[in-house]
Amino acid sequence: MHARTRRPWLAIAGLAALSVSVTGTIAFAGTATTSALNEHGGATRNAGDRTDAVRKAVVGGHARNVILFIGDGMGDSEITVARDYAKGAAGRFAGIDALPLTGQYTTYSLDKTTGLPDYVPDSAATGSAWSTGTKTYDNAISVNLAGQPQQTLLELAKANGLKTGDVTTAEIQDATPAVLVSHISQRSCYGPVKTTTTCPEAAKENGGLGSITEQLLDTRPDVTLGGGATTFAETATAGTWAGQTLSQQATARGYATVTDKAGLAAVTKADQDKPLLGLFAPGNMPVRYAGPAATVGGSKLPAEKCTDNPDHVATLPTLADMTTKAIDLLDNPDGFFLQVEGASIDKQDHAANACGQIGETVDLDEAVQAAMAYAKTHGNTSVFVTADHAHSSQIIEVGSTSPGLSVTLTTADNAPMAVNYGTAPSGGSQQHTGSQLRIAGYGPGAANIVGLTDQTDLYFTIRNALGLADDAEHASDKAKVSATPAKVKPGQKVTITASKFYGDRRATVKITGPARSTATRELSGGLLTLTIKPKKPGTYKITVTGAQSGKVAKDTVKVVKPKKRR
Amino acid sequence: MHARTRRPWLAIAGLAALSVSVTGTIAFAGTATTSALNEHGGATRNAGDRTDAVRKAVVGGHARNVILFIGDGMGDSEITVARDYAKGAAGRFAGIDALPLTGQYTTYSLDKTTGLPDYVPDSAATGSAWSTGTKTYDNAISVNLAGQPQQTLLELAKANGLKTGDVTTAEIQDATPAVLVSHISQRSCYGPVKTTTTCPEAAKENGGLGSITEQLLDTRPDVTLGGGATTFAETATAGTWAGQTLSQQATARGYATVTDKAGLAAVTKADQDKPLLGLFAPGNMPVRYAGPAATVGGSKLPAEKCTDNPDHVATLPTLADMTTKAIDLLDNPDGFFLQVEGASIDKQDHAANACGQIGETVDLDEAVQAAMAYAKTHGNTSVFVTADHAHSSQIIEVGSTSPGLSVTLTTADNAPMAVNYGTAPSGGSQQHTGSQLRIAGYGPGAANIVGLTDQTDLYFTIRNALGLADDAEHASDKAKVSATPAKVKPGQKVTITASKFYGDRRATVKITGPARSTATRELSGGLLTLTIKPKKPGTYKITVTGAQSGKVAKDTVKVVKPKKRR
Repeated sequence: MHARTRRPWLAIAGLAALSVSVTGTIAFAGTATTSALNEHGGATRNAGDRTDAVRKAVVGGHARNVILFIGDGMGDSEITVARDYAKGAAGRFAGIDALPLTGQYTTYSLDKTTGLPDYVPDSAATGSAWSTGTKTYDNAISVNLAGQPQQTLLELAKANGLKTGDVTTAEIQDATPAVLVSHISQRSCYGPVKTTTTCPEAAKENGGLGSITEQLLDTRPDVTLGGGATTFAETATAGTWAGQTLSQQATARGYATVTDKAGLAAVTKADQDKPLLGLFAPGNMPVRYAGPAATVGGSKLPAEKCTDNPDHVATLPTLADMTTKAIDLLDNPDGFFLQVEGASIDKQDHAANACGQIGETVDLDEAVQAAMAYAKTHGNTSVFVTADHAHSSQIIEVGSTSPGLSVTLTTADNAPMAVNYGTAPSGGSQQHTGSQLRIAGYGPGAANIVGLTDQTDLYFTIRNALGLADDAEHASDKAKVSATPAKVKPGQKVTITASKFYGDRRATVKITGPARSTATRELSGGLLTLTIKPKKPGTYKITVTGAQSGKVAKDTVKVVKPKKRR
Repeated sequence: MHARTRRPWLAIAGLAALSVSVTGTIAFAGTATTSALNEHGGATRNAGDRTDAVRKAVVGGHARNVILFIGDGMGDSEITVARDYAKGAAGRFAGIDALPLTGQYTTYSLDKTTGLPDYVPDSAATGSAWSTGTKTYDNAISVNLAGQPQQTLLELAKANGLKTGDVTTAEIQDATPAVLVSHISQRSCYGPVKTTTTCPEAAKENGGLGSITEQLLDTRPDVTLGGGATTFAETATAGTWAGQTLSQQATARGYATVTDKAGLAAVTKADQDKPLLGLFAPGNMPVRYAGPAATVGGSKLPAEKCTDNPDHVATLPTLADMTTKAIDLLDNPDGFFLQVEGASIDKQDHAANACGQIGETVDLDEAVQAAMAYAKTHGNTSVFVTADHAHSSQIIEVGSTSPGLSVTLTTADNAPMAVNYGTAPSGGSQQHTGSQLRIAGYGPGAANIVGLTDQTDLYFTIRNALGLADDAEHASDKAKVSATPAKVKPGQKVTITASKFYGDRRATVKITGPARSTATRELSGGLLTLTIKPKKPGTYKITVTGAQSGKVAKDTVKVVKPKKRR
């Protein structure tokens, strides 16, 4: 069966490139490729027995680095739509499709009220799932059903001495990047303004952890790249930087800010002294492709090609540019954890824009290629590629009648393909869907994604791949408790955060002083957060004792009556 | 992280069983299960590091037996719909989800006219792809784009001395079972009547291979089980059994026929002397579940449970019954190849019947469990579970507005789930979709399905797992040529089939006698078929010479003028 070794996708990939870059209408050079695909064995992807290759791909032990790619809304259907269009049906993404181990995972979230499964999750709950290992409700950013903060992979990596990065094509406050760096009840609380109205428990003026952006600045990844500059014009309501914009705060706290591709290219160092903050758009970054709108009956219209989106200017970095630079800046002997999100696959799927979602998938693929190239040359690096939830787009028959919005595109095969959006009426936002998703992995620990897993498994897969702090390893870490703010007016909220109680499942929080109280709470990842509102003036002592470890940590908070004006 | 070892799905699976069998409305026993799912690590599926387990699952060498399960139309969305309903979101199918190795594969077919990819394939082209390793056009049953028969896995297994079985819940002439046993231009040519009008090239009166049912009887698997009795009442138009019904023909040719569960249970032997033909329904076998119809706005209606379909009577075997019996009958030291199809996942998806498709997925799961139990106790058996193409059903938000038909069901979690069908208007047939699909494998050779493959790779994966006849191994087999019918009237069509030309990519067909002709044709799997219409009376000699092997095989055909009536 000699045909099996021909790898027809190589030929097709070449053709695809031609048909896009040269004229957009070049005829399909039928003979060679067509005869390859219709030959016995001509359409196969395996070049021979892969048993040994798969066995070699199953690697145990620890990785120094983990790079996690999230195609937001990139279900199997979205991958296929993009592959068919950009590479042809027999084509292959050089990045996304190149990871050797694959599986499926479930993505359901939990209903906030009932705690029962919610079969169609949002990006906040799903991101929180892999970021913290805890299933939660839609809109939740790394807090559990009870609203308690759950330690994130990025926080854990940082606590273990790894460098960290958070890269996206969306606003950096959007759910997927936010789940790594913040803990808040509602995903929309980007800045102080919205937080005051919608997430009062987190508002700085209430003694909370602050908005997503403020928590991002606190969490201080070494590299943060994306859109979302607008929120940085908001002003902090309380705390050390009260009255300053978040942009001023970032500068005051040592962040280096860049806003374009040239600025990013010029950066040579990013660390805790000078973390990098790339803000390349006021909101989400522009998408790559534009194209015909999906309409009712669009599957019966003549096929069209996607076009370049003029807003996607060359002065802005691509996701691959951002990924490559992030890797350069994070590469260090202690390792790093980097998450990279292709955000607008989801956003364009919501908008029933097939070309939009295709372009973003191509964009993500190039970023994955960059990471795989690094992983293969440097070793000690695991790469994961998956999505947060499935989405609406489906490939249907050209010329068929569907009740949804549809559009017909000319693919790299120079054949027509119809894409349908049947989950929302014209003008509405197409919906996420509840299907299980593809997850792919490369490197140490990646075998844990093979078969059927849940999204929360990915937290443990990455944590264990990096050899991070499980309870036993960090049982000797010094536990810590902090009360914020340290000085309040009577009745004002104080947030008590106990951390590094690794190995403890519960801890007792004892408050002494002008009033006394004791409570036992569950810990998660060595972490617990609760709030108090002390009324009587005076100094309160807060003592947290780990139920399993017996470790003790203390802090104090002062309640001071405001002086009466004369 | 003790929660990680709790396996919350066990608890949920138990509840599901209760809620279905006891009352259908039993309250979710919230505390234990809910707290498990919302705990840190409480929703994970991995009980610990699986690197060693996955490594052990990668097994090389040959399997004695291969059992292939096809869930027709069972995309990732369909699997998730069924799992959520029957087992809960955190649940697990004991069969379908238990195979250790997983991947995705592409399913596109080829346009008959242009040869370009057709992104939304049918069950005929997709079945032909894994059955023969050759991509073809929609409606084609194991013939290539040019209409040439392609050797099937079942034929190849039989030629190699393995026992074979073909099991389905559909009519046994339906595309998925048909692709193993027949070669015909249109899938609808079940019997002689339709073949005469629609597939004249195959009609017996034209010297063709006959209808799908007639070819099935020729191919003679040891075990054939399913529906489709109606077609057996048709009468053969030509050949040895001309004038007899196909049912009479089956009996005359030694087939044992059974029509119910008791009859099937009583069978103790099935082989080439007495192959087993189970025909359990006139058409497709009845599905397991009934339930509320999907309607426009159905996602806003109160959630309901599925009910038992009264037509699914206990006197008929389930797919698990058929699978278990087939395995019993096929088990032998030389090995077997068995395909089992859960056919009506697709048919119920077309009908926008969520309960219907769920019940058939549950049915398939039980059949997979039976096969996995056999494989694990007997060893030397590889099991594959996949689908032929993706389909319409999507899980959408309860209470949302969609342009498609939707329905809300109460799942095993006692939570509402909405299923949407957005690819055809009310009353129309919901469409296949073009997404890549899950494929899962267990046993020797199964690692070849990990990562991204194509549907045609599955042919080679199974062929190689069974160690069947690749060219080199069978280069010494005696090649064969047969002309059918051996005696014709002038101008009547004669089909020439050359087989076992393993190792040859082309062969020369030379005809000598009252007229002469020579043609060179491509071989596929050692096989080629062509037709001639000799006019001059006399004896023709047909000589086929393999271009690579030089092997020669011969046959003759006589053309006789009909005697004039006096």
